[in-house]
Formats: sequence, C-alpha cells, structure tokens
Amino acid sequence: VGSGDDAAVTVPTGATVTSVDAVVDGVHFRRPTFPPAAIGRKALAAALSDLAAMGASAGEAYVQLGVPSDMEADECVELARGLGEVAAEHGVTVAGGDVTASPSLFCAVTVVGRLASAQDAVTRAGARPGDELFVTGELGAAAAGLAVLDRTELAEVLPRDVADALRARQLSPVPRLGAGEALRKAGATAMIDVSDGIGADAAHLARASGVRLVVELAHLPVAAGVAEAAAFTGADPLDLVTGGGEDYELLATLAPDAAQPAATALDALGLSLSRVGRAELGEGVALVDSAGREHDARGFDHLRR
Amino acid sequence: VGSGDDAAVTVPTGATVTSVDAVVDGVHFRRPTFPPAAIGRKALAAALSDLAAMGASAGEAYVQLGVPSDMEADECVELARGLGEVAAEHGVTVAGGDVTASPSLFCAVTVVGRLASAQDAVTRAGARPGDELFVTGELGAAAAGLAVLDRTELAEVLPRDVADALRARQLSPVPRLGAGEALRKAGATAMIDVSDGIGADAAHLARASGVRLVVELAHLPVAAGVAEAAAFTGADPLDLVTGGGEDYELLATLAPDAAQPAATALDALGLSLSRVGRAELGEGVALVDSAGREHDARGFDHLRR
Repeated sequence: VGSGDDAAVTVPTGATVTSVDAVVDGVHFRRPTFPPAAIGRKALAAALSDLAAMGASAGEAYVQLGVPSDMEADECVELARGLGEVAAEHGVTVAGGDVTASPSLFCAVTVVGRLASAQDAVTRAGARPGDELFVTGELGAAAAGLAVLDRTELAEVLPRDVADALRARQLSPVPRLGAGEALRKAGATAMIDVSDGIGADAAHLARASGVRLVVELAHLPVAAGVAEAAAFTGADPLDLVTGGGEDYELLATLAPDAAQPAATALDALGLSLSRVGRAELGEGVALVDSAGREHDARGFDHLRR
Repeated sequence: VGSGDDAAVTVPTGATVTSVDAVVDGVHFRRPTFPPAAIGRKALAAALSDLAAMGASAGEAYVQLGVPSDMEADECVELARGLGEVAAEHGVTVAGGDVTASPSLFCAVTVVGRLASAQDAVTRAGARPGDELFVTGELGAAAAGLAVLDRTELAEVLPRDVADALRARQLSPVPRLGAGEALRKAGATAMIDVSDGIGADAAHLARASGVRLVVELAHLPVAAGVAEAAAFTGADPLDLVTGGGEDYELLATLAPDAAQPAATALDALGLSLSRVGRAELGEGVALVDSAGREHDARGFDHLRR
C-alpha cells in the first residue's frame, strides 16, 4: 500500500533504522538563493546521511511539506522533483507524505533503512581508546558553497569548476550511503555524519563513546576553494572546515589495523578516507594544530539566538 | 538504539504501517488559544489516527519540532510532555526526534504501527456495493470545540460539562486505535479516519474503492452542543458535522451481516457505532437528508487560500 491511503504498509526483514530530519526556510536554506529542486534534494539527502552514519542501506522515505501561501504550485512540483531525483539515485521509495499549509516553508523527511541485524548498527558509542579517527571526502565545501551563492564576486575569483563544485556541495549534498556501508563492513567502531561541523560532531561521538578525540587540524581534508572563500569573506578558514557544517561526510573510528582495508574500500567508491586523529582515554574534543596548540571547536547550533 | 544516535534501530515482526502528519501554527492550531501541551497531544493523536484507520496497533513515533524564536524552553517542555502523555496512553515509544529553529511553530510526527501481515491492512479501497457505511462516536465536536475556545460567551450558554467536552475534542483528540483494530477484526472492508470532515473523507474512500457512498444526514451522530454552537456562531450545523473535520472518528464499510458483531465490539470499548449510509455502484458521495434531497459535501482543504 503506497501513498494515497492513510498509511504505507511494508514488510521489513532484519533490523529497521529510522531517522528524521527537517529543513526550514531561513535556517537550512533561503528561498531566494535555493532553487526549489535543491530544497527537495537537500531535505532527503540530509535525512539519508543519518542512515549512512549507521552503516545502513536506504529503503523508504516519508515527506511532510509545509507550503506557504506565496509558494506557487510549480515550485512545489520542482521541490518534489528534486527530492525524487535523490530518491532515485539511492534506490529510495517515497512511500508516503503529507502536505499542509504553513506560514513558512519546511520539508520534514523520515527515512527508513535496513540492516541484517540490530547488532550491525554502527552507533556513536563504540569508539575505544587506541582507535584512529577518519573522515571521508573533504570538509568546508558546503560552507564555502554558501558564500559562493551569497557573493557573486566570490564566484568570479574562483576557477569556474571550483565554484561550481562548491555550489553543488551546498545545494545538492551527497549522502555517503555506500561509504557508510563500506566503513561498517570494515569494522568501524563508531560513526556520525558531519552535519554540524567536525568539531561539534566529534564532540557528540566523544560523549557517546566516553572517549577523548584528538583532531589533528593539519590532517583535515580541505576542499578546493575553501581557503579562497574564507579570505574573500574575512572568515577564518578553520571555522569553515571545522564548524561550517552540512558537509555530510562521515566521521568514523576504526582500530588501526582496519584503516587500510577501509581506505581501499572507499577508494573503490571514488572517495578518499583521511586519518584525522585518534581516540584516547578521557573526554571531549581537542582540535590540535601542527605546533601542538589547541583550538576551540565551533559548530552550528540550530537554536543559537 | 534510541534517540540520541543518528537513527533509531528496531527489529519489527509482521508488517509495518507508517504514516506522517504535521500540525502547524495558524493552520491546525493557534498558539494563543492552544496550550503547548495540547499542541503536542494533537500532533501525535492526529498521526496515530491514521494507524487506527488501517486497523493497526501503534509502535513508535518520531517527532520533528520547528521552534520559533519567541517560544520559550518551558513551552517546548510542555509540548513534549503533552505528546509524551498521548504516547503513554497508547503504548507508543517516542524513538527519535529532531529539533530545529523555524520561523513558525510546527510539529511533524511519523508513527509506525504493526499488523500481523500486510494482508490485514484495512485500506480505503475495499468497499463494495452493498456494504453499509458506519462511523464511530460522534461528529462535529472538534469544530464546535474550536468555536467554544474562540468565543467565551458561547461557553457560558452551554452546560459546563458539554463545553468542557467540546473543548477537549478540539484540544485533545483521541485516536480510535482500539476501535480500528476491532473494526478490522469484524471484517471492515474499507476504512478512513474523519480528519477533513465526513463529506471529504467519504469522497476519498469512494474514489479509492470505486463506489458511490450515500450518507444519510439524519443518521449522522451529532455531538451534544454542536447545534447550540452552530446557532451561536451563525454556522450551518450540517457544516460543522459534515465538514468541520478533526473529529478523528473512523468511517468504515462493512458487509451487512458484519454490522452487529462490530457494534458489539465497539460497545465493549465504550464507543458507539452508527450506521450512516451505504455503498452503491457508481462514484462520488451523496449527502441525503430525510426528504431525499442531496446536499453539498464540504470539507477542510488545507491549501484553500
């Protein structure tokens, strides 16, 4: 029974992994800057990123759309089209939804994924002292992409392909579902997606696991154009990389001997895996530069006023 | 794995029934009128009503809350408390959630229920010509309750217990989960919850089933105080009963010989079951008065501008 009835009916096997995520106008996107299709893409991608962080495969999505009175029907269709594209790219069935009037645009997505068993889930809580800390892909691109979208002069000083890539990382983030499954199979002990910035998300993982995480700033993989975007906007490039958020890369801990097989598996997916630190006895997160100095971890706080 | 990680992990058996529903400030409630706890109660109850309409039992809920900057922390706590009360009343586990800043308050809920098998689901599509049409409980109370909340003078002309009951039907609707399961076991051929008004919801059921539904207005069970509320506000009482919406009663079709066992099962739950019409060959909905005249079906359209 698909959408159109009161509820969707599925017959799951194994364990079910469920996550919810919402994107809201003025918080996660701004309508003048974001084409409607990008809003739909981002809403589903952000939710799927949570499944990736559990090492799960993706199954179904349920979408709740709040539509303001100044949003035209063709914008809604575009939003749905963008969301549907991401669903098709990852084999996700949009199994249900709800549309309501709303003073402001929001798109709340529930995603359901699968694991063979509940024991297969890679939580935030399994990191052990001695594990090494890894991140997929590159950081800072989503934050730099927002700057490119906001400041057309910035786009003009960057090589066109770099500007395009940064914009795409903000408008059309890619949930790392394949990488999440590969890291689970490689034995990741804990995992989280980098949605709030590596500083904040490492803190979540450290707290859940009861370890201290040391992040070596010199080893963070920085996306092309991030330094230029920071210089242009007067931001600290470190803030874009560690606190910009929305990169939707995966941050995972692995035992040292699992690192090489994991990197090989990700390489087969066309994605890099960078060793960026380690787990130690203790608590909290230390962002350490090459001279051994500690820096503050900043992250995106949705409720900061 | 409960809330606090990237996703929740469950190990379901049988078939899973999933529905989403959102309540939005200015559309489904108004913050000055609705205490925060009532917003939480209504959000979960409305979602659970969809599971009731499938004949499913309730399992987990996932909550996405959009919090405006003028909402205080204690209001959020109250909203969560109200939602938690409804969860406890129906044995629902709140397994995950997401809180985000938002220009306006919304609460989007995903509920997951269970059936022994997918074949057990009571859809909207199974009504057959010759079936009789039934509704649980009483209609019009939620719409009249809104009038009582908006017009204090109205509350004063009603008996206190009637005014209280109408207010409660608006602020704290009850999902008919037990009744939905009982109607499924009694052989309901099709079912839908009355969220938009019996006229609109009967039309959904008629369309999905490919039948014509005749609703006999004289047989609609009208809640106490609805006539007085209509007289006071100058509304047509029929509009409150057939188009007011949010009563969250169940509208179901049954073969004639299944009616008596179904009524007996609902009586054991303290709920009435009224025969309000029949399914015929054809399409659409006819609201027919005792003189045989047809009336227009009105329903709540969320996107009507």
